[in-house]
Amino acid sequence: KGGKLLILPGDHIGPEVVHEALKILDIVEESTGAKFERDFDLCGGCSLDKHKDSVTEAVLKKSEEADAVFFGSAGGPEWGHSQPNPESGLLRIRLRMQIFANLRPCNFVSKSLVHRSPIKEEIIKGVDFMLIRENCGGAYYGNKIEEEDYGCDPWEYKRSEIERVARVAGALAMQHDPPLPVWSADKANVLASSRVWRRIVHEVFDKEFPKVNLRNQLADSLAMLLITKPTAFNGIIVTDNTFGDILSDESGGLTGSLGLLPSASLAGAPAAPGTEPTQGRNNAGGVRGLYEPVHGSAPDISGKGLANPAAQVLSLAMMLRYSFNMHHEADVVEQAVARVLDSKEDGGLEVRTGDLGGRAGTREMSEALQGEVRRL
Amino acid sequence: KGGKLLILPGDHIGPEVVHEALKILDIVEESTGAKFERDFDLCGGCSLDKHKDSVTEAVLKKSEEADAVFFGSAGGPEWGHSQPNPESGLLRIRLRMQIFANLRPCNFVSKSLVHRSPIKEEIIKGVDFMLIRENCGGAYYGNKIEEEDYGCDPWEYKRSEIERVARVAGALAMQHDPPLPVWSADKANVLASSRVWRRIVHEVFDKEFPKVNLRNQLADSLAMLLITKPTAFNGIIVTDNTFGDILSDESGGLTGSLGLLPSASLAGAPAAPGTEPTQGRNNAGGVRGLYEPVHGSAPDISGKGLANPAAQVLSLAMMLRYSFNMHHEADVVEQAVARVLDSKEDGGLEVRTGDLGGRAGTREMSEALQGEVRRL
Ligand SMILES: CC(C)[C@H](C(=O)O)[C@@H](O)C(=O)O
Ligand SMILES: CC(C)[C@H](C(=O)O)[C@@H](O)C(=O)O
Repeated sequence: KGGKLLILPGDHIGPEVVHEALKILDIVEESTGAKFERDFDLCGGCSLDKHKDSVTEAVLKKSEEADAVFFGSAGGPEWGHSQPNPESGLLRIRLRMQIFANLRPCNFVSKSLVHRSPIKEEIIKGVDFMLIRENCGGAYYGNKIEEEDYGCDPWEYKRSEIERVARVAGALAMQHDPPLPVWSADKANVLASSRVWRRIVHEVFDKEFPKVNLRNQLADSLAMLLITKPTAFNGIIVTDNTFGDILSDESGGLTGSLGLLPSASLAGAPAAPGTEPTQGRNNAGGVRGLYEPVHGSAPDISGKGLANPAAQVLSLAMMLRYSFNMHHEADVVEQAVARVLDSKEDGGLEVRTGDLGGRAGTREMSEALQGEVRRL
Repeated sequence: KGGKLLILPGDHIGPEVVHEALKILDIVEESTGAKFERDFDLCGGCSLDKHKDSVTEAVLKKSEEADAVFFGSAGGPEWGHSQPNPESGLLRIRLRMQIFANLRPCNFVSKSLVHRSPIKEEIIKGVDFMLIRENCGGAYYGNKIEEEDYGCDPWEYKRSEIERVARVAGALAMQHDPPLPVWSADKANVLASSRVWRRIVHEVFDKEFPKVNLRNQLADSLAMLLITKPTAFNGIIVTDNTFGDILSDESGGLTGSLGLLPSASLAGAPAAPGTEPTQGRNNAGGVRGLYEPVHGSAPDISGKGLANPAAQVLSLAMMLRYSFNMHHEADVVEQAVARVLDSKEDGGLEVRTGDLGGRAGTREMSEALQGEVRRL
């Protein structure tokens, strides 16, 4: 059990929260006997400083060979005018690893967080969907043209790119009984790439996931409905790179707890417990993937011991589940986060960082999390 | 005073609400002596039925020649498989009229509506921004490729397209003293078209609107911030066609009153009161434009006399302001809508349609609006 990790803490609070999350991994190792080989390297601003590039070929190569990449966050104002920009490192890793499915859960880890949402409780309560963003194609990659008076990004999709991400949505839907409903979001009323997307997603579901209820959803009206009726999408949303970029950040805003949002980017569909993935399999029998919190590098609070490590810890849980088939341990880590956040309501101490309205620091929050993981 | 209108009521509730809104125009004519020539024609499903096309060349030609187009809404399930689709009529009119700036205000016409927002009152109260979506370029137009296994939409912008929409943002900002702040939303960290967009928007503001505070805002993080801190963007947001499509519908969700959202699509920057537009000028001395409510054709309630005419009436107000320089009358119509919505709080009768939680029908709501416009 276990495997080979490439750890890229990145910039600012990245290293701070990665450091704490790895203590949770220590505990998982102790209690399960699993062994995770840990290779630390650079990506983002730190790589620009040392290598004049946002990521080196050596790191790209290692990212392909690792069973999983555990990523902190990249960027900061000091690299605001760097060429390339620090974020480009992550984009290049995504492409090299072919982690084409970006998974962003939108739910409340703990009931005690519902009231923190900007959305009224009666509307947001019970929200629980997984947004899958295609992450290696569309307008964000490909042959761009950038001239003095003209710019062009071809927004293109080919069959294989659509099929593989549709399969991730289908496989995740089928891990529930009854299968979760799936919404495919596009602008087929305007975009050719969306029409091809819609047709091929339907072909994949008709053939491979006939039991899943697949519906089309226009991406613009989805942006409205996610605010007015978020729970109507409980299930799975799958969409292209551009719409997914915007809609996943919107979804992040819905819960109002940016410091608690994890993400996974996978090179294949995760296998159901007890089975193995058919695409993107790593040497640990899981799916190759990169795991990172949604929040950025937060330069304003970096170095102060104030960052909330929970999103990084929840990203670790996703890593255990998808890349290492450690479903039970993933559940335990997620429950530990919920218990720390609920502890006040359960008559315990409140341990919350500033982003959650509390006064705890990174270390204190981390220790509380470690305590709960040990107990479970 | 007055001018030449092309009226395209469209499908389902479109004709119902357009009919009521025109009664408001009657009153404006009576009380000001202005005269509006009214030419009714077809666009959308109704045009498909009669002409087998979503819009005819004759209508496109008239749309170019009118001082303004007053649009209802197009589409419905009965044309779900039509080729072309009913919405394509509107897209073709946009292109032919070169109404490249789509304006969508996000605010509360009346304080009594704040509590209807899905967002908590303390967060959404006081929100007041204008979102300007570039509406004739980017990925939604241009040479698309649609094959069995591949689709491509070139997401492209050239200098002139960016300059003209930047000028609309600048001109609107300058109509306030002090000038409103402007956020230009893009993904310059990923897209070549966004980098060109960002550079040219800055050039236009540096040269032509040096007093306006212009800031860059990444479109994805804007999607989150519009939910968590909407009032932070009070002012003007300008963005490209794709981001604008998604973000404007998201903004529509923020207030929670879809039946109250108007929009304007303009062929040039609106002139300040007392001046004339330099681009897109019509024969009435205003800007050529098309005005339509944000809500769709609502087939579920069509023909029942239940539709809320307020968004159509507010679109009429925008038309009076931008295409006919009738600023005072535009204000009066907007105030009338606010007064009807506030009437219960002012000790009067509550007149609200179902979308606002009331029991009034289209006619009743319309009569209340007419009454208030007459009184003002
Ligand atoms: C940093 C940027 C290139 C990236 C993206 O747009 O993919 C980020 O916004 C994200 O969503 O992960
Ligand atoms: C109907 C469709 C083509 C249109 C668009 O995307 O422009 C609509 O969604 C809108 O926002 O006006």
